[in-house]
Amino acid sequence: MAPAPVATGLGAWAAAPAGFEVLGTHGCFGGVQYFLQHESKEIGLPMRLAVFLPPSVALASSSTARVPAVVYLAGLTCTEETFTMKAGAQRVAAELGLALIMPDTSPRGAGVAGESERWDFGVGAGFYLDATEEPWARNWHMESYLMHELLPALTHPTQGLPIAGLGPQGAVGIMGHSMGGHGALVLAHRHPGAFRSLSAFAPIAAPTQCPWGQRALGGYLGNRPDAWALHDACELIRSRAAQGLPPLYPQGILVDQGLADKFLEAELHPHLLEAACEEAGQPLTLRRHEGYDHGYYFIASFVESHLRHHHRCMA
Amino acid sequence: MAPAPVATGLGAWAAAPAGFEVLGTHGCFGGVQYFLQHESKEIGLPMRLAVFLPPSVALASSSTARVPAVVYLAGLTCTEETFTMKAGAQRVAAELGLALIMPDTSPRGAGVAGESERWDFGVGAGFYLDATEEPWARNWHMESYLMHELLPALTHPTQGLPIAGLGPQGAVGIMGHSMGGHGALVLAHRHPGAFRSLSAFAPIAAPTQCPWGQRALGGYLGNRPDAWALHDACELIRSRAAQGLPPLYPQGILVDQGLADKFLEAELHPHLLEAACEEAGQPLTLRRHEGYDHGYYFIASFVESHLRHHHRCMA
Repeated sequence: MAPAPVATGLGAWAAAPAGFEVLGTHGCFGGVQYFLQHESKEIGLPMRLAVFLPPSVALASSSTARVPAVVYLAGLTCTEETFTMKAGAQRVAAELGLALIMPDTSPRGAGVAGESERWDFGVGAGFYLDATEEPWARNWHMESYLMHELLPALTHPTQGLPIAGLGPQGAVGIMGHSMGGHGALVLAHRHPGAFRSLSAFAPIAAPTQCPWGQRALGGYLGNRPDAWALHDACELIRSRAAQGLPPLYPQGILVDQGLADKFLEAELHPHLLEAACEEAGQPLTLRRHEGYDHGYYFIASFVESHLRHHHRCMA
Repeated sequence: MAPAPVATGLGAWAAAPAGFEVLGTHGCFGGVQYFLQHESKEIGLPMRLAVFLPPSVALASSSTARVPAVVYLAGLTCTEETFTMKAGAQRVAAELGLALIMPDTSPRGAGVAGESERWDFGVGAGFYLDATEEPWARNWHMESYLMHELLPALTHPTQGLPIAGLGPQGAVGIMGHSMGGHGALVLAHRHPGAFRSLSAFAPIAAPTQCPWGQRALGGYLGNRPDAWALHDACELIRSRAAQGLPPLYPQGILVDQGLADKFLEAELHPHLLEAACEEAGQPLTLRRHEGYDHGYYFIASFVESHLRHHHRCMA
């Protein structure tokens, strides 16, 4: 069936969230794909993001109707546009009535010396944490940016978009790819209850044990193993169990991994996530796929089942 | 339902077509997304393209089993990667058992003076015709390239891919966007019988009557109104009727047009296509969509119904 006409623009049912500038809007599967920008206090720079609002938003008869959302965290070198443009997720989100929130992957334009020397550190490589080491400590605050600034602003009950809030009474899930899969797994466990559902594509599952992760954790946090452990999904899942806490996602975490992924062996270590979840009693569906690589043709192939997983968990 | 595993690479059921180099392969919805390159005699330069082969290819038990295909011609500034990456077409093609063929939009690297001065002429703007004016006449041979070189090579019964041939006994459809919508409409009518089905997104429907078309036709063909008319879809459709020939697509041509498309009024003129088809008795389904623009969020929203149209026409 062909998508419905785009009934309304942003104006018809909501103002842009306070403090956000609309850079572009596109009719998409009966909903609207937005590109937004705002001045981030946490980052100290302008930050861009993309938001998809499904057609069900336009059907809401009152300004208090709000839709569930899934946050997607992208991988190294990506921007807010990558998943938005390449994954084909809006089709499924439109059908399920889910909003999609796509943040950028790091500060841009800070002018820190060396920020663009490597593709796996600095610009495009924020690792979704708050740096404590200089010269990164001023701007590289992606965790605080997401959890204390961006997501609260977008889901604000009166000044945000018509998106449900964070927390157990809200309806926001989180997923990500590679570095963003690390981000999703780690933020979900560092902020228990904030996200109702969790999934990842080819995540960096144990950053303390791979070159990408070690470089990032060392560069942003210094040589502090105690701090590193607080940003490693496997360590966080094990640590909850060691404290006698129940698993955070009793409905399960969904992870897809391609077996033709050239980063699988050295960087991703899904078997360590599998072991940690097993040890902690955290249900995990880890699907390994012959013939799929690390890119967006892989993500596009499986994004539908991820969004259905989030929708089911938030039902 | 999640896509099937990618059962095989190119090697398992077919060699790369003779003379083509495989630049990349990606598992995608149970099929394989290829990026290929070859030395084109018609263009006199290397040309790139993308081909998607659906999972049904792998199921073929004999080397003579061949799948239907749809050629997609892209618009100004695009490459073989644009639709491949942004449209989400592989999901539907995999389901329907269609191959997809995505050529580039012009010669690249010819080094003709002024070839990259404008985004709507020269590089990225081949208009799917054979230039007769200098300095374009040597390389800008996109029509002969597609019809006499690329498509015959890809569909060659023994040296090509396992794709059905051109012609009434074959199973190849054609579609395109903007300049590529012009290309699809015009090539289908200049080569009667070659393509079994035809559709377009926001085509340049009457290039003799809009600035993009006039610049291209004048630049590539010179000031020759007789030659221009042979590259204008409306003129070609009318001309068939004037000769007493029946419409080429009795099952209909499908065209989608967004009403928030900023090029609609000055460049696209779908109402002229509507009038020409009406006059010629050529069935046309022209759908106008509120809120959709000229970009790939529009194309992605409607690509499923285009592929289903081609599949139906080739059944």
